[in-house]
Amino acid sequence: MIETPYLLFLGDAPDPLAAKVAQGIRDWRPDYSIGQLRLDGCKADMRLPDMTLEEARDAGAKTLVIGVANRGGIISETWRSVLGDALRAGFDIASGLHNLLRDEPELVRIAREEGRTLHDVRVPTVKYPIANGEKRKGKRVLAVGTDCSVGKMYTGLALEKAMSEKGMKATFRATGQTGILITGEGVPLDAVIADFMAGSVEWLTPDNDDDHWDVIEGQGSLFHASYSGVTLALIHGGQPDALVLCHEPTRTHMRGLPGYGLPTLEEVRDLSLQMARRVNEGCEVVGISINTYGMDQAAADAYLAEVEDRMGLPTVDPFRQGAGRLADALKALG
Amino acid sequence: MIETPYLLFLGDAPDPLAAKVAQGIRDWRPDYSIGQLRLDGCKADMRLPDMTLEEARDAGAKTLVIGVANRGGIISETWRSVLGDALRAGFDIASGLHNLLRDEPELVRIAREEGRTLHDVRVPTVKYPIANGEKRKGKRVLAVGTDCSVGKMYTGLALEKAMSEKGMKATFRATGQTGILITGEGVPLDAVIADFMAGSVEWLTPDNDDDHWDVIEGQGSLFHASYSGVTLALIHGGQPDALVLCHEPTRTHMRGLPGYGLPTLEEVRDLSLQMARRVNEGCEVVGISINTYGMDQAAADAYLAEVEDRMGLPTVDPFRQGAGRLADALKALG
Repeated sequence: MIETPYLLFLGDAPDPLAAKVAQGIRDWRPDYSIGQLRLDGCKADMRLPDMTLEEARDAGAKTLVIGVANRGGIISETWRSVLGDALRAGFDIASGLHNLLRDEPELVRIAREEGRTLHDVRVPTVKYPIANGEKRKGKRVLAVGTDCSVGKMYTGLALEKAMSEKGMKATFRATGQTGILITGEGVPLDAVIADFMAGSVEWLTPDNDDDHWDVIEGQGSLFHASYSGVTLALIHGGQPDALVLCHEPTRTHMRGLPGYGLPTLEEVRDLSLQMARRVNEGCEVVGISINTYGMDQAAADAYLAEVEDRMGLPTVDPFRQGAGRLADALKALG
Repeated sequence: MIETPYLLFLGDAPDPLAAKVAQGIRDWRPDYSIGQLRLDGCKADMRLPDMTLEEARDAGAKTLVIGVANRGGIISETWRSVLGDALRAGFDIASGLHNLLRDEPELVRIAREEGRTLHDVRVPTVKYPIANGEKRKGKRVLAVGTDCSVGKMYTGLALEKAMSEKGMKATFRATGQTGILITGEGVPLDAVIADFMAGSVEWLTPDNDDDHWDVIEGQGSLFHASYSGVTLALIHGGQPDALVLCHEPTRTHMRGLPGYGLPTLEEVRDLSLQMARRVNEGCEVVGISINTYGMDQAAADAYLAEVEDRMGLPTVDPFRQGAGRLADALKALG
């Protein structure tokens, strides 16, 4: 578990998009985000106070989170210097970069000397069990998609927020690196060893109060040839009571697979339910989340209405509308 | 790739079952098996010449294969001494033990000094790609099961043998440790990192002659809550043209999951085909392989006839009858 609150490191972000991890933390865990640290030339701004390491430490920050992608996949000399200073100032460091902090000998040495922790959230550090398939207490909802990168994490975080606002007990359970950095914990499922995938999801979503919902972050798609196994492990390990279908309507082929078209929402509904009912026979699809980023307001409204009518399920874009109607649908499940 | 031929190390096997890896090599790759090395008290016998390290080396053996499970999961002092001598005598060593050879400092040191290789086949050594889902040349058949451990490896090896005897081009593609030790190469799929599972299967079954069949070793089951993700990666990465359904009729619940009954052969057929056709729309189920080990001959014959009639597909026990009829069914596919 990563210690909070955070100082968000934006580095020399060439544009706002490069800092999307920081943006996610800022949006979904504003109470974790007490300041930002920017270097010369940084083009991103979280609208948080700019702080030095000392100022952030005095304000209570415990961890410097790398909220930006590094240029060229290299941890530059400038970054290395700042990260070393952060360790010396008493910060842990958390990173989802491909280049691991642990592969930087100087940072490893300083962290050891200072008694600080380097969190590479891409790499599992837990010895997960083999899944046992046993029914657990509490409820679970999982986002499943027509494709990768259609808004499953966003949907889950919006759902957690809407449920909390309605007084429901809900915990977002991160299964990807950005989600882990946002919430400070989780399972980097795509990096787990095959035999332990479903077990890691059971581990992530243990027994809980009968009226508590784990909102499990979805990954991949049952229809994506590269990652479908990860998705199925998530369904079988997660034992969902409820599913939310996620879709991005302007996508013309599966992400990274030019030869593959997207499945229909009906196909995703039927196959996901069949799979989920193997481990939880009461599982239901409760709603649909559409990422209408690529559409104007009128087109988005028309599309959402069409899907809602066709599928007979509450259909929202959580970015435009919030996930309140999906939360209501979960509440109605009992 | 493990160098052949082998000297099979049977150690101090407490019973024949403990040496089942050696038995598999002996049965399926008799030309790889030029001798056996047994210690005092060994209760297993492959009916191969007992050889000293020197005799086996002079006979051409390149690799000492650990064909036996170690007692208590510990590499004993006696074993360590023999394995060290083998390295000094010029052998590589191959092992599927949980305890890795690479975790034995003395063996690592001797191997380095002697320029020999320690093969821990449980651990992937290749950097596998992400699957790209593109159609490859050549044909592929995959065994899919109602459960784990119902005879998928045996079925695949029997199929390779029957196809070769009929003059068909066929290569067994190992995806588990025993299969890798038998054939000398393969992918230890259960130990591959989640994101690369399907890619590792694509890597294992590359473009080939149009009339060549890869016979892909199956793993797990789409219906097994612990391992289903591995099975789906195998189907999507393998792009099978043909499936063989595997079943063990005396099983009362899923292996390791007392609360889960087995799916029917019809359920396995329908779901596996649906999944396979996502990546290869022409995929067909060509036959059924039943492990009737727990039945007497009359019961086995009656069961096989009943399934064949019900499913309308050639149904055999490859141990009792060979896999000739399954090979014929593949040939008929063209």
